[in-house]
Amino acid sequence: MNSFGNHLKLTTFGESHGIAIGFILDGVPSGIKIDEDEIQEALDKRRPGANNFTTQRKEKDKAQILSGVFNGFSTGAPIAIIIFNENQKSQDYENIKYLFRPSHADFTYFMKYGIRDYKGGGRSSARETAARVAAGVIASKILATVNIKVQSGVYRVGEIEAKSFDFNYAKSSEIFALDKNVENMQKNSILHVKKEHDSIGGAILIEAIGVPAGLGEPLYAKLDAKLAEALMGINGVKAVEIGEGVNASKLKGSENNDQMDDKAFLSNYAGGILGGISNGDKIIIKAHFKPTPSIFKEQKTRDIYGQATLLSLKGRHDPCIAIRGCIVAEAMTKLVIADMLLLNMSSKIEHVKNHYM
Amino acid sequence: MNSFGNHLKLTTFGESHGIAIGFILDGVPSGIKIDEDEIQEALDKRRPGANNFTTQRKEKDKAQILSGVFNGFSTGAPIAIIIFNENQKSQDYENIKYLFRPSHADFTYFMKYGIRDYKGGGRSSARETAARVAAGVIASKILATVNIKVQSGVYRVGEIEAKSFDFNYAKSSEIFALDKNVENMQKNSILHVKKEHDSIGGAILIEAIGVPAGLGEPLYAKLDAKLAEALMGINGVKAVEIGEGVNASKLKGSENNDQMDDKAFLSNYAGGILGGISNGDKIIIKAHFKPTPSIFKEQKTRDIYGQATLLSLKGRHDPCIAIRGCIVAEAMTKLVIADMLLLNMSSKIEHVKNHYM
Amino acid sequence: MNSFGNHLKLTTFGESHGIAIGFILDGVPSGIKIDEDEIQEALDKRRPGANNFTTQRKEKDKAQILSGVFNGFSTGAPIAIIIFNENQKSQDYENIKYLFRPSHADFTYFMKYGIRDYKGGGRSSARETAARVAAGVIASKILATVNIKVQSGVYRVGEIEAKSFDFNYAKSSEIFALDKNVENMQKNSILHVKKEHDSIGGAILIEAIGVPAGLGEPLYAKLDAKLAEALMGINGVKAVEIGEGVNASKLKGSENNDQMDDKAFLSNYAGGILGGISNGDKIIIKAHFKPTPSIFKEQKTRDIYGQATLLSLKGRHDPCIAIRGCIVAEAMTKLVIADMLLLNMSSKIEHVKNHYM
Amino acid sequence: MNSFGNHLKLTTFGESHGIAIGFILDGVPSGIKIDEDEIQEALDKRRPGANNFTTQRKEKDKAQILSGVFNGFSTGAPIAIIIFNENQKSQDYENIKYLFRPSHADFTYFMKYGIRDYKGGGRSSARETAARVAAGVIASKILATVNIKVQSGVYRVGEIEAKSFDFNYAKSSEIFALDKNVENMQKNSILHVKKEHDSIGGAILIEAIGVPAGLGEPLYAKLDAKLAEALMGINGVKAVEIGEGVNASKLKGSENNDQMDDKAFLSNYAGGILGGISNGDKIIIKAHFKPTPSIFKEQKTRDIYGQATLLSLKGRHDPCIAIRGCIVAEAMTKLVIADMLLLNMSSKIEHVKNHYM
Repeated sequence: MNSFGNHLKLTTFGESHGIAIGFILDGVPSGIKIDEDEIQEALDKRRPGANNFTTQRKEKDKAQILSGVFNGFSTGAPIAIIIFNENQKSQDYENIKYLFRPSHADFTYFMKYGIRDYKGGGRSSARETAARVAAGVIASKILATVNIKVQSGVYRVGEIEAKSFDFNYAKSSEIFALDKNVENMQKNSILHVKKEHDSIGGAILIEAIGVPAGLGEPLYAKLDAKLAEALMGINGVKAVEIGEGVNASKLKGSENNDQMDDKAFLSNYAGGILGGISNGDKIIIKAHFKPTPSIFKEQKTRDIYGQATLLSLKGRHDPCIAIRGCIVAEAMTKLVIADMLLLNMSSKIEHVKNHYM
Repeated sequence: MNSFGNHLKLTTFGESHGIAIGFILDGVPSGIKIDEDEIQEALDKRRPGANNFTTQRKEKDKAQILSGVFNGFSTGAPIAIIIFNENQKSQDYENIKYLFRPSHADFTYFMKYGIRDYKGGGRSSARETAARVAAGVIASKILATVNIKVQSGVYRVGEIEAKSFDFNYAKSSEIFALDKNVENMQKNSILHVKKEHDSIGGAILIEAIGVPAGLGEPLYAKLDAKLAEALMGINGVKAVEIGEGVNASKLKGSENNDQMDDKAFLSNYAGGILGGISNGDKIIIKAHFKPTPSIFKEQKTRDIYGQATLLSLKGRHDPCIAIRGCIVAEAMTKLVIADMLLLNMSSKIEHVKNHYM
Repeated sequence: MNSFGNHLKLTTFGESHGIAIGFILDGVPSGIKIDEDEIQEALDKRRPGANNFTTQRKEKDKAQILSGVFNGFSTGAPIAIIIFNENQKSQDYENIKYLFRPSHADFTYFMKYGIRDYKGGGRSSARETAARVAAGVIASKILATVNIKVQSGVYRVGEIEAKSFDFNYAKSSEIFALDKNVENMQKNSILHVKKEHDSIGGAILIEAIGVPAGLGEPLYAKLDAKLAEALMGINGVKAVEIGEGVNASKLKGSENNDQMDDKAFLSNYAGGILGGISNGDKIIIKAHFKPTPSIFKEQKTRDIYGQATLLSLKGRHDPCIAIRGCIVAEAMTKLVIADMLLLNMSSKIEHVKNHYM
Repeated sequence: MNSFGNHLKLTTFGESHGIAIGFILDGVPSGIKIDEDEIQEALDKRRPGANNFTTQRKEKDKAQILSGVFNGFSTGAPIAIIIFNENQKSQDYENIKYLFRPSHADFTYFMKYGIRDYKGGGRSSARETAARVAAGVIASKILATVNIKVQSGVYRVGEIEAKSFDFNYAKSSEIFALDKNVENMQKNSILHVKKEHDSIGGAILIEAIGVPAGLGEPLYAKLDAKLAEALMGINGVKAVEIGEGVNASKLKGSENNDQMDDKAFLSNYAGGILGGISNGDKIIIKAHFKPTPSIFKEQKTRDIYGQATLLSLKGRHDPCIAIRGCIVAEAMTKLVIADMLLLNMSSKIEHVKNHYM
């Protein structure tokens, strides 16, 4: 169960401290210009060690295309990309070899498989998300063909929330902040918890612009359901909202309904999705990340033999995983929409006829 | 794309005003006592027309088992169940034959398929959820075998929120209210919007008790991701939370982490899932429903020829879909957990060996 | 695992002596004229009781469309069709209630599920293939849109083999014989084994004409692999050949290669498929059916308690299942090709662009 | 569509003259000893260049495990294995850059994707089957846990057919011959066509011993259907038979039925599968390979611009692909049976109960 998607299918492999991580992306149409540099650029955005607000772990994250591209263009064959692991400090994990880190997946992997790759979380590590980000670049090339654009940013760090959203600003912000005016407060909040050996949660916003009406396969591959699956499956995400989200459940129908005239919808409480199908309006998604479970304060835990013990973590960790999580969430959103774009092509028999005749 | 699940797979069919709705549930182990009466009982809970707080549409929703059961027990063959449609007032929909109801799926289905079953929403109608509820009963029989129990209730109607949760009380409440003390306020809120020809949103809580540690298939069939997909795919759901949910993104790691001793977890902010795998603790999920889009106030819309127009809906509708949605969400949760239960059986090679040798 | 297909997905249900059999066909594009009469016509071809060469069991096989069709056209929603069982003589099966019929699935279902619907084989009965035939009609409507035609006939009964193939003649032959000149010998062969209370094997030929080059998804949904799966999964099929088939393995490359000039292939040993992808030439498939295991001669067997015993079957059975099997194989071939037709639509990025822009 | 299997899922990547080929195998239970040496041993059997009867292309085929194995044991995480390409003589293919090789996939890939990796066939090359062979080793470790053994050999080269089957002998035969007595004739046949710049077809036999009754998921993941799919999907296979195969269609029921007593089946015409489910008897499969299409005789063909031309191939090719194909077919058979073994674990509710309680 390490595959995601229907027509455009991502299968990933790799552990944080193994030889490499990587993926096979299947279902990519032929004829797309695929550029290792563009993939690298995206990986660099997600890469740890960039500044004070993310982990100081430095990973070069150099992606290499192994297959599916010939003379710079996709061939229709599965695209495999590998990222070798470097700068692993496995010794950082010797002290947790027999312990379960609180609120990590250590305990559940051990219960499920009876074996545990204790080095950096192994398969459960967020390191795997580098593969998602690289795959997201290829998805975005598909989307670009039909002028769909996906953008993202951090709108809340702890309690400090953006008042306005500027996706262009977010791109150049060290914490991908959507609101320049609260960015410093958000940064200070992160530095503060970091100093306290603690961590902080955060929330991100994603928008997809130019999505044509009609994407999403009812009833069990609805666009919103697939987006929720994609985002809730990212390490640390505990809530997903579409459009007005939680707030919609507090409103009256007369407040939440999106009326329309002959030109457009008059509001977008729906977040661009009705009945699980895109309505042509902007798609709006929020995801909420818990604080990094890796904190340096002493915590109560248990060892693999069942004994209670105390644990003080060491190592290098993100004080706020929402920041790098933002890039991952954007990538997953791209994969979902690109998949739906391909799936939708045979919705009408006239499309089938026009294609072949 | 009308199937849900991996090992336990639900495929549904049917439109609100067609001949029948129903489903095929595949992957049910043999030897389970399947009782039409139990299925009926669950359908009766979801059934419209029961009281003042749901639609006055009366549907008998009589389920008939067509296959997969022999002498009262499942045989391992796919179980098909049919529910014939009755009490359809198709004429209620004549006035919207050429119009798109605001915030309904009318517009998106038309854009996707170029054809629209305008009677009651056709395939996009919540009527299909009766199939989910019936399938959920079979899932719950699988869960009962290993003492897993799933329960649900409404915890918020509009802004009026439960202070405490009593799932037993919810069972007998007309609005599945979890908190007896706010129930009347919640009821009044519903009656108030109903009188105003409006509707109101709401939120529900689901708990799964007795789920063994180890369920959930990383990395792309995580338990939380599959629950998010299942619930976000229900008509009207706009947000899904696991455990502390949105609030987790406002906390520090030291506040949100679940420490453990040699006996148990000392808190459950995670909502029973770590790294996408159940940790043995109680699973906690929230889903947020938008207000019913069918309101009787005049609204601006467009007809299928692109002309702006005004629309005043008639018919019989739920003033708060969260109420009946609660039963559907519980059923979907059961389907997800039962699926994961079956999928997990071969996680270790020793299980395979013990099974066959 | 009762579903077949990727984009066009068939899920069936039902046992031979239950209430009904039927199916849900998902992924049908909207806008196809769907006609209950056409479905009925196909079912009548497969229907038992038509003449001396098939079972005397009479089943009306009346198909009813339950969903997915609105005003005579497909809507994009899943199409469910039900065929109620009639003329069941369950008492015919009382004598085998505790016995395993030799070369039937009785034994294996009992070993797998520990429970057995002994009436007519239950789920393992060929009765389920009526659902496949009905679904095949819908597939053929998709194929007709792009002028693909699939035809079939019986080319061998036991050792008596057709010298030439006339698919038009086969249509009106009682045994779907492809060669008028051997038809009587084939018929006599069937009547002979029937009189002897025995049965006889047979082989069929299927051709698909007008299949565009490019169908089939390498490497694990190759067109030939999917056809082999589809046909080998039909009750009684023990071998499948594509193009020259078994004989290809006796030839030299210089004999078996299909050379080409600027207009066409100069031969078709490949049977229209190269590297798992259609090459635009005629697709040629053969399937070999074993003799009906239901014979009236006394046979050694075992009861469900493990005791050796003797069994003399009664009832009404096909003396040569290849005859009716031919109609089923044609239907499965249509489903495979239609599925591949839809899947192939996004093979090139320019197709995606042309579709949406 | 580059994935195969349900619970045990193989996804492959790579082209013959790209950087590497490889695969991700998902669904492997934890706790299996995985040994690079064993994988290497299997690859060496399939490896080209071993003797006069296969291609003189020399590939080292060194497999490296990238993930899913920790301290020598599987962890439950996806296992990725990479085999870097070496000894590629891309210049061998310069002369076919603009030509379609007869009976190769060149033409169909070009028609489907509009782009063609002309070097050695790219994705369509049999080189990819090295990945299958390596994955088959892991499958065989699962099978070994429950004492299932799969063995294979070549039983026919052209018209020269084995009279008896000795699988142990086959292991050490240079052409995997099952019958020592015809081996030399088969070898001479190969050397003869080789000298003539031609090639020859062949057929192989696979047996699976110790398969418990109950494997195979009716109705659309039957064991025989999945084996047929798996084998027909191998490069060059044009026919697949189960048990008596083609011959079953020539027999009477009284000849072909497998009667049973209280101990065993009295014959095995079925090849160990009834109703798509294993019956506990030996599983018997045959696959028929066409002659290698790469021959050095002059042939008529077309270039990518549509002009007729003549082609004389160069390079190094197998004179009889059935030989190395035998190893691939054995691997695919192992993957299918291991998949079915895992899938079957929840067939009865008592199994589910015993597992968790």
